[in-house]
Amino acid sequence: MVRLFTENDLNGRQSVALPRPQAHYLRNVMRKTSGDSILLFNGRDGEWQATLSESGKRDMIAEPVSCNRPQPAADGPWLAFALLKRGPTELIIEKATELGVAKLLPITTAHSVADRLNFTRLNAHAIEAAEQCERLDVPTIAPLSSLQEMIDAWPSERRLLIAAERRSMPPISKFLRHAPPALADGLLIGPEGGYADWELDGLLALPFCFPISLGPRILRAETAAITALGCWQNLVGDVQTETC
Amino acid sequence: MVRLFTENDLNGRQSVALPRPQAHYLRNVMRKTSGDSILLFNGRDGEWQATLSESGKRDMIAEPVSCNRPQPAADGPWLAFALLKRGPTELIIEKATELGVAKLLPITTAHSVADRLNFTRLNAHAIEAAEQCERLDVPTIAPLSSLQEMIDAWPSERRLLIAAERRSMPPISKFLRHAPPALADGLLIGPEGGYADWELDGLLALPFCFPISLGPRILRAETAAITALGCWQNLVGDVQTETC
Repeated sequence: MVRLFTENDLNGRQSVALPRPQAHYLRNVMRKTSGDSILLFNGRDGEWQATLSESGKRDMIAEPVSCNRPQPAADGPWLAFALLKRGPTELIIEKATELGVAKLLPITTAHSVADRLNFTRLNAHAIEAAEQCERLDVPTIAPLSSLQEMIDAWPSERRLLIAAERRSMPPISKFLRHAPPALADGLLIGPEGGYADWELDGLLALPFCFPISLGPRILRAETAAITALGCWQNLVGDVQTETC
Repeated sequence: MVRLFTENDLNGRQSVALPRPQAHYLRNVMRKTSGDSILLFNGRDGEWQATLSESGKRDMIAEPVSCNRPQPAADGPWLAFALLKRGPTELIIEKATELGVAKLLPITTAHSVADRLNFTRLNAHAIEAAEQCERLDVPTIAPLSSLQEMIDAWPSERRLLIAAERRSMPPISKFLRHAPPALADGLLIGPEGGYADWELDGLLALPFCFPISLGPRILRAETAAITALGCWQNLVGDVQTETC
């Protein structure tokens, strides 16, 4: 069934006037018509089944009928990453959303190459990925900040796992197996060119930062981000708590 | 240092005449000239440092000088995957190479959408990814086959882990933690549309097939492939055996 994100409240009392792009998608791409059902979520009220009705030639209204799934507590990992070129950045946004990230923090570092971010475009990618992967919220995308600004604002009770190449670090699986469990960590992925030595030394001196390795090969930044998140979810995240 | 893959033997006795595209890349993109060093690997003889010499206006010869790293035993995991459209297929080839896959087996299934494969193009992607990530071999890409042909030819001593959605399966981390260790598994990633019920039932009846889950969200096929490989390497693969 088609799943769409909406900014509107979802309850049994208010109907949802769908914005033109969603109405166009439903009417002309998915060939939906009055009486058909879709699923709606807004990141607050769970997932609702809603009945469509056409309105005029172009618009569509959705009438939420029943809540299928309650809203889970949002406690996913955070992902901070040195901003990359457009393609790899969009890949990170899409895959991190699929992998349940709660917050994305794009940053600039001494050796990062990109310093401009199209928030609207990246947010649209996150929404589309959330619609597709059946999660009930959309990750927050923080404004672009410098590594230092990001660290200054970091909540110190949340661990920050730092993927570092070419230094001897414990593999992420060993770290997570031996460290006391924490509900939701942050992961930091540096730029293709690596950190400046003083950046990495500064990070590793912080009490909430822990270096980890992702293996013997040199991963591209977007591969490192996807792998680290996938491992985290599978080792201590919500894959573990799944009933099976 | 620039790393290039070559088909030639690498030893202290034979020089390597580089093909035109590599010579062009070295001379005109990387601005290398006579006397500069590069690294060469061929998947058999380890990694060699080689000294370049220009030959005529366009050609370049590399003289292997010393072996930096011996060739490791190739025992990485295999990845079988329902062929996707070009973009996601290339993404899988690139990321699987970075993640140390030994063999890629593209297949067709009842619900897979693509049925043509440009071997030369995919192999070029694998070579480029291998050059970049510092591994010493290039994964084999098997010819496109049907799921049934792939299963008929599967070596039964190698486990095949099957990522299955929407059925109750153990998370991959739990499976790998509790199953007896095996040196190198295979992973099977189905098409976006999922397996036909009879396909999945048939697979699960085979003694070397084991179903696993990658979590509560519905991952795109390429995300599932990258996540499954990353988890495998981090849990039982060569990330574990890394010295640290």
